[in-house]
Amino acid sequence: MTPKKRAPRATKMVYSFGNIKTEGNASMRTLLGGKGANLAEMTNIGLPVPPGFTITTSTCAAFFKNRRKLPKPMYDQMRKAITRVEKETGKTFGSITDPLLLSVRSGAAVSMPGMMNTILNLGLNEAAVEGLAESTGNPRFAYDAYRRLINMYGDVVMEVPHHRFEAQFDKIKASEGVIEDNEVSLKGLKKLCKVYQTIFKRATGIDFPQDPYLQLKLAIEAVFRSWMIDKAITYRRIEGITNLAGTAVNVQAMVFGNKGADSGTGVAFTRNPATGRNKFYGEFLVNAQGEDVVAGIRTPEPVEKMHLWKAPTHKTIGREIKAKLLKVKDILENHYKDVQDIEFTIERGTFYMLQTRVGKRTSAAAVKIACDLVREGLIDEKTALKRVPANGLTQLMLPSFSNKAKLDHELLTVGLPASPGAATGTLAFSADEAVKRAQGGESVILVRRETSPEDVDGMHHAAGILTSTGGMTSHAAVVARGWGKCCVAGAQEVLIDERAKRINIKGQRFSTGDTISIDGTTGEVFVGRIATQAPKLSGDFRLLMKWADKYRRLAVRTNADTPEDARRARSLGAKGIGLCRTEHMFFEGKRITAMREMILATNASARKSALAKLLPFQRKDFVGILTAMAGYPVTVRLLDPPLHEFLPHGARSQKVLAREIGISTKAIADRVSLLHEMNPMLGHRGCRLSVTYPEILKMQVTAITEAAIQCVSGKRKIKAMPEIMVPLIGTERELEVLRALAVETIEEVKLAKKFKGKLDIPVGTMIEIPRAALIADKVAPHADFFSFGTNDLTQMTFGFSRDDINSFLPDYLSQEILEHDPFQSLDATGVGQLVDMACKKGRKIKPKLHLGICGEHGGDPASIAFFHGVGLDYVSCSPFRVPIARLAAAQAAL
Amino acid sequence: MTPKKRAPRATKMVYSFGNIKTEGNASMRTLLGGKGANLAEMTNIGLPVPPGFTITTSTCAAFFKNRRKLPKPMYDQMRKAITRVEKETGKTFGSITDPLLLSVRSGAAVSMPGMMNTILNLGLNEAAVEGLAESTGNPRFAYDAYRRLINMYGDVVMEVPHHRFEAQFDKIKASEGVIEDNEVSLKGLKKLCKVYQTIFKRATGIDFPQDPYLQLKLAIEAVFRSWMIDKAITYRRIEGITNLAGTAVNVQAMVFGNKGADSGTGVAFTRNPATGRNKFYGEFLVNAQGEDVVAGIRTPEPVEKMHLWKAPTHKTIGREIKAKLLKVKDILENHYKDVQDIEFTIERGTFYMLQTRVGKRTSAAAVKIACDLVREGLIDEKTALKRVPANGLTQLMLPSFSNKAKLDHELLTVGLPASPGAATGTLAFSADEAVKRAQGGESVILVRRETSPEDVDGMHHAAGILTSTGGMTSHAAVVARGWGKCCVAGAQEVLIDERAKRINIKGQRFSTGDTISIDGTTGEVFVGRIATQAPKLSGDFRLLMKWADKYRRLAVRTNADTPEDARRARSLGAKGIGLCRTEHMFFEGKRITAMREMILATNASARKSALAKLLPFQRKDFVGILTAMAGYPVTVRLLDPPLHEFLPHGARSQKVLAREIGISTKAIADRVSLLHEMNPMLGHRGCRLSVTYPEILKMQVTAITEAAIQCVSGKRKIKAMPEIMVPLIGTERELEVLRALAVETIEEVKLAKKFKGKLDIPVGTMIEIPRAALIADKVAPHADFFSFGTNDLTQMTFGFSRDDINSFLPDYLSQEILEHDPFQSLDATGVGQLVDMACKKGRKIKPKLHLGICGEHGGDPASIAFFHGVGLDYVSCSPFRVPIARLAAAQAAL
Repeated sequence: MTPKKRAPRATKMVYSFGNIKTEGNASMRTLLGGKGANLAEMTNIGLPVPPGFTITTSTCAAFFKNRRKLPKPMYDQMRKAITRVEKETGKTFGSITDPLLLSVRSGAAVSMPGMMNTILNLGLNEAAVEGLAESTGNPRFAYDAYRRLINMYGDVVMEVPHHRFEAQFDKIKASEGVIEDNEVSLKGLKKLCKVYQTIFKRATGIDFPQDPYLQLKLAIEAVFRSWMIDKAITYRRIEGITNLAGTAVNVQAMVFGNKGADSGTGVAFTRNPATGRNKFYGEFLVNAQGEDVVAGIRTPEPVEKMHLWKAPTHKTIGREIKAKLLKVKDILENHYKDVQDIEFTIERGTFYMLQTRVGKRTSAAAVKIACDLVREGLIDEKTALKRVPANGLTQLMLPSFSNKAKLDHELLTVGLPASPGAATGTLAFSADEAVKRAQGGESVILVRRETSPEDVDGMHHAAGILTSTGGMTSHAAVVARGWGKCCVAGAQEVLIDERAKRINIKGQRFSTGDTISIDGTTGEVFVGRIATQAPKLSGDFRLLMKWADKYRRLAVRTNADTPEDARRARSLGAKGIGLCRTEHMFFEGKRITAMREMILATNASARKSALAKLLPFQRKDFVGILTAMAGYPVTVRLLDPPLHEFLPHGARSQKVLAREIGISTKAIADRVSLLHEMNPMLGHRGCRLSVTYPEILKMQVTAITEAAIQCVSGKRKIKAMPEIMVPLIGTERELEVLRALAVETIEEVKLAKKFKGKLDIPVGTMIEIPRAALIADKVAPHADFFSFGTNDLTQMTFGFSRDDINSFLPDYLSQEILEHDPFQSLDATGVGQLVDMACKKGRKIKPKLHLGICGEHGGDPASIAFFHGVGLDYVSCSPFRVPIARLAAAQAAL
Repeated sequence: MTPKKRAPRATKMVYSFGNIKTEGNASMRTLLGGKGANLAEMTNIGLPVPPGFTITTSTCAAFFKNRRKLPKPMYDQMRKAITRVEKETGKTFGSITDPLLLSVRSGAAVSMPGMMNTILNLGLNEAAVEGLAESTGNPRFAYDAYRRLINMYGDVVMEVPHHRFEAQFDKIKASEGVIEDNEVSLKGLKKLCKVYQTIFKRATGIDFPQDPYLQLKLAIEAVFRSWMIDKAITYRRIEGITNLAGTAVNVQAMVFGNKGADSGTGVAFTRNPATGRNKFYGEFLVNAQGEDVVAGIRTPEPVEKMHLWKAPTHKTIGREIKAKLLKVKDILENHYKDVQDIEFTIERGTFYMLQTRVGKRTSAAAVKIACDLVREGLIDEKTALKRVPANGLTQLMLPSFSNKAKLDHELLTVGLPASPGAATGTLAFSADEAVKRAQGGESVILVRRETSPEDVDGMHHAAGILTSTGGMTSHAAVVARGWGKCCVAGAQEVLIDERAKRINIKGQRFSTGDTISIDGTTGEVFVGRIATQAPKLSGDFRLLMKWADKYRRLAVRTNADTPEDARRARSLGAKGIGLCRTEHMFFEGKRITAMREMILATNASARKSALAKLLPFQRKDFVGILTAMAGYPVTVRLLDPPLHEFLPHGARSQKVLAREIGISTKAIADRVSLLHEMNPMLGHRGCRLSVTYPEILKMQVTAITEAAIQCVSGKRKIKAMPEIMVPLIGTERELEVLRALAVETIEEVKLAKKFKGKLDIPVGTMIEIPRAALIADKVAPHADFFSFGTNDLTQMTFGFSRDDINSFLPDYLSQEILEHDPFQSLDATGVGQLVDMACKKGRKIKPKLHLGICGEHGGDPASIAFFHGVGLDYVSCSPFRVPIARLAAAQAAL
């Protein structure tokens, strides 16, 4: 039997919602958009929603496929849906006696800026406005609705500049001598409707459409068209939104909060979105339409005081509506299992829900709400973890300025928000000065064009750092973030005169002793002292972290170079150090002189004797760090930066050094010039130093081994777990050779110290050169672990110098060549490909190869999700990002 | 039926050769080594070879497996083989009356420096030496043989320092008042044998072994041991020799060329190895042993004069032997199909062949011999192509100093052989000066610490370039090689005093006007003027190139920026330009001023007006180049270097420029400082310039399109085939955006010029950033072609800056971390992996994607083989390397 042919049934394009029939629900977000799905859902769960219908997102796609014409079948379906609305409301669309008025709103599956918004009061025309005036007994209301329609319609559907309408409204208000919109006389409003129609015609060439169905058709088309405006396309590309068919259109019966003292409108959150407190939080306006609340034309009242609202005809209205709202809160939270952001309207005492959506909240609120909802049994721990955006935790851990306090101070300029937090202090123009004054108890802001390793000590002592050049990954930014120290970088309007110890910001001058305040979270720079708020880590925060640790697979370590940082990170939950840089250790006091002696040595034996002076310092540093991290691994990276970074570049400081170590100034200048490199990033650094100067490696490994022996053999039996990390390898031979030297040195030290105990010091390498990733299978046999240095890997994979990228990065971002700064969030496509390749190749040879990452990306949630995906064992990030990483790791695992 | 069990037969370890039995042949090189296989082969084809046997390379492997003990079965097999030798020679090994003496030589499948060489006269002892004296009637001969044995045995087998023997020999000669070895008296020789034995015992602790079989055993073990000495292991690693089991040992009956006037020895090539001329070419010594010829103790006679040799007992000996040699030549060349390098000995009138192997030859000879052998019908064209080492062709195409002329001049110092060729001239210390004096007809050598793009004009005019810093891939080296101009780089002993216009080389001073000569092939720097020899390209050279073109698959283009270079490359066989850099075009005269105006412009419109001045220059350049390459593609790379390279960096030249273009010196200095980059290599350059300054791209594309239209529309209807290449892309969007701009510009120009003809200008990109290779599948849709920029790709894949690598490269090469400089020959493992990946990913999306390479590696034979392997369509190299590339491409294809 062959199946009978049937006439094809038209695709369903229109979904009604209302008491008569509701066809959608919350799960149909993709087809009905967020707003449409929620309107249907609210109807389903018995909330009072004005009836209406949603035109599907597929219809939008069909519209574009059909050369921007609405598909025929839609009209039939829409008429049926309108009939239902008419039936439920008892009004008729297009009636000139008691017209049904409609609102038209766009609503995609995700909220999208730039898309067309709202048209209200659709269905009015010259005749219907009279009918409305009569049926409501309120001509002012009717003409006010009409003028709003013409204005919105012109503005939103036909792109008539809004200010043209506004100007005429102002004129009428002036002629009548009134200030508020609702004070204009009926006559004035009638006149305004005429004037508006003239403006409309002049701008569009057509009369304001009198046919309500034509109004509706054009409005729907306008909503669909707005899906393809540049701004919306761009937004979708940047956000990587590719799976949406289009926007839906929601058409709904109008209800009016401006029909008198027994009407009103409001917006509310079911809990406090700033603190997370479980208390209904909202505002309302009596006798007003929703847009009035948003536009801030009148000051709304808090819902708390709603019980005071009494209409002449309905004394208990406030008490009743408030009770209703609290009931709605329970219904919604029980249903949606989350805090909701709602809009409601009361028309002549009748309560309507116009919208519900997930409520946006601060990080503090997010943490509290998530924990509360678990305690209330509404969600489980896993859901709670997903509810808190990991990146937001930073703001909970750093001092900040209150927004209110900021308003009292003049904003001087805005730089890059390089390292979050807030700081206030007097200006210092050199590292030395900053150290000196900070040690004297002063809170100073170190101001530099850009910082260099020579400034590190001063940066450490300063309360905050302000630079005029350099980007988000400049030296200042990276070092400051590592410490959780506030830094505003690249504030180009700050002109620095170092010699005169003065800055000039747009004509205002500040010098040593003047106080400024900088906000590293926003990049703002203010005049004067602003009080900071200290961070408080709540019990809920700790609870959330406990849950995160329960569900994550990735371990979280920290990048720390001092016992102090190690302790801080440990208190924030770090289980080890993934990157202990050794170069910062060489800048203090006598060390730098010995370091310079080493660099200036002309043969290996002179180098060795200078290194011998450095050994005790290094050993002491390592003892401190190993002790602070007792029981957890400490991955020490061997000396990495090019040697010239340690030498003074100015003639004067070269002279001082010459006197100090007793060689000629010329010898120093010659060495500096010899060490000069065209591209230091790609130069003589990392393991290349150890290949040419093996004695440096020997000194460092000796210091590490001696420190570890001192820890484990001492009275306190400190469980020291050092690991040695060789940086910048590009060939397997580098690691083979240097590993052999390191292992030999470790054994020599054990022998010399007559150490018989157990002390395994793994030797591994950073994978930070593209070639190392490409040949990871050849490197693996020589490595106990890989640690991805994604900063350098990003530099070389892209061919971008972090120091120089700011000359073109802004253009690259604005032209959308890059979706984000690849130094902030890992480029999964390119750099990530190498990381993935190296993991696979490494583990193929050595299935248990330990894998981690210690670049800046270790504290970035999106990157952490990637690292979880490729199977790393741990991420390592700066101390203040440890909680973020713990949470992000849990989210990645869920 | 089950097969019967048989006692395992011992592996065959010893292969005899000789008239009684010959078990090997030339094809058994792997098992018998090169020398052993050829000794067997010569016996097989009827040449007179003293009998002997070869112990296999597998026996060597067994020796090491067996804890450095010789495997038992070998002894039995060896005794049998010795018996055959005794039978054939009629002498007995170990006899004290008429002893058989043996030579022992190593011989692996490939010749290997550092391996043990030769022991002669084995079998002599205190008794046998007397027997030998008696049987030969020549006691002097016998004791001379004995002292040679003890010396060689001590030296080679037991590692007794050679000079200890030498010193005693000198003492005896002195005491007898003679000079030559063969003047020492019998008594002296006898005494010497005693003294040598004492030296032997003192150094080794044992007596010189008297048992001939023990002598033989120890000698064989010594040969095997030498396979595993460090030098040999290293050599095999560097040469990538991994498939050899070990070395073979050749044991052979001694024949003596030193038995009187009817004896002699010699070495010869079957054709002239310097010129390739088909004429027997060799030398001989009467009454001498082979080692005497090699050691140069006496001056040998040319074989040409051999007919003059007349022994008292044998008047026609010379004529007979010469005829024999010519017969041997024919037999060998007919058999081996190549020129042979032979050793022979005549013992009492009897002729013996001791060795034959392929003869080494100069490049000129290689070309001639290959062509001659084809004409003679001995080999085919394909074989001929494989016989000429591609790299050697350079020396045929450049001027050179004769070695003889060099000897007449003082060698001052040796730098890096940065760009081959020879040049002589007076010193010039600045580019301007070089231009001026060269234009006045002077031949100048430009001397600079290091060159920069500002020096390009001067470099072009100079006869040669000498720098004191910078490596093989420094600016000077790369530019000079591109032009085929002689350059010695990094001559560190040359101390330059630019202000005084003077150099100081090890205390000798030279100033403007002094003449030096530099050899870019060797890196040598000489005092004074040395005459150069002009290159002549022979007919055979052209013939070989014709064959190469017939068999190669890879096309060969050139890197050329001027019509002159384009023409030169075309005459050398280039079929197009793979890389036409546009930056050099901006340095001449007025152009650089307009270029600088463009860079100093503060807004797009000022930039456009400066660019408008550059347009006519660019157009003219392109017309010239397109005309020179008519009918072939010309790939123009858009502006690549960072802009600061075009600005003057000195205060004085900034002042001049300021006056010239009418802005303040400070503005220039500020711009220079703003454009300064930490790592210019990874900075604002390449396509990044076009993204931020699209007007530069527009100007260049306009110039290209207008030039092409001018060519094709002009009277001569020149077939211009430009291609536009976007450098340094790392994301697909860069190419997408810039391609769109380029295509739009091309169309605009066509419209403006009312051009209706056919003119397709493909737009492609360089793949020179690792990320571009990783995402080649995403790039391909926007590219008509990929051209691999392997210079930058190597820099970023390794994280090596070409400008800075010399601080550690020497250590990396000497410690064998790198096998070769990856900028000279492509790193197939790492960089090659990216190239291969990009080819595969690109062609997966676009199967006909055109692929080429335009880095320095395009002229390197090993790299060309790799590029052939991954399926590129063409390589592009500097004009002078075009023939090399053509040949290498053919060799890769065969």
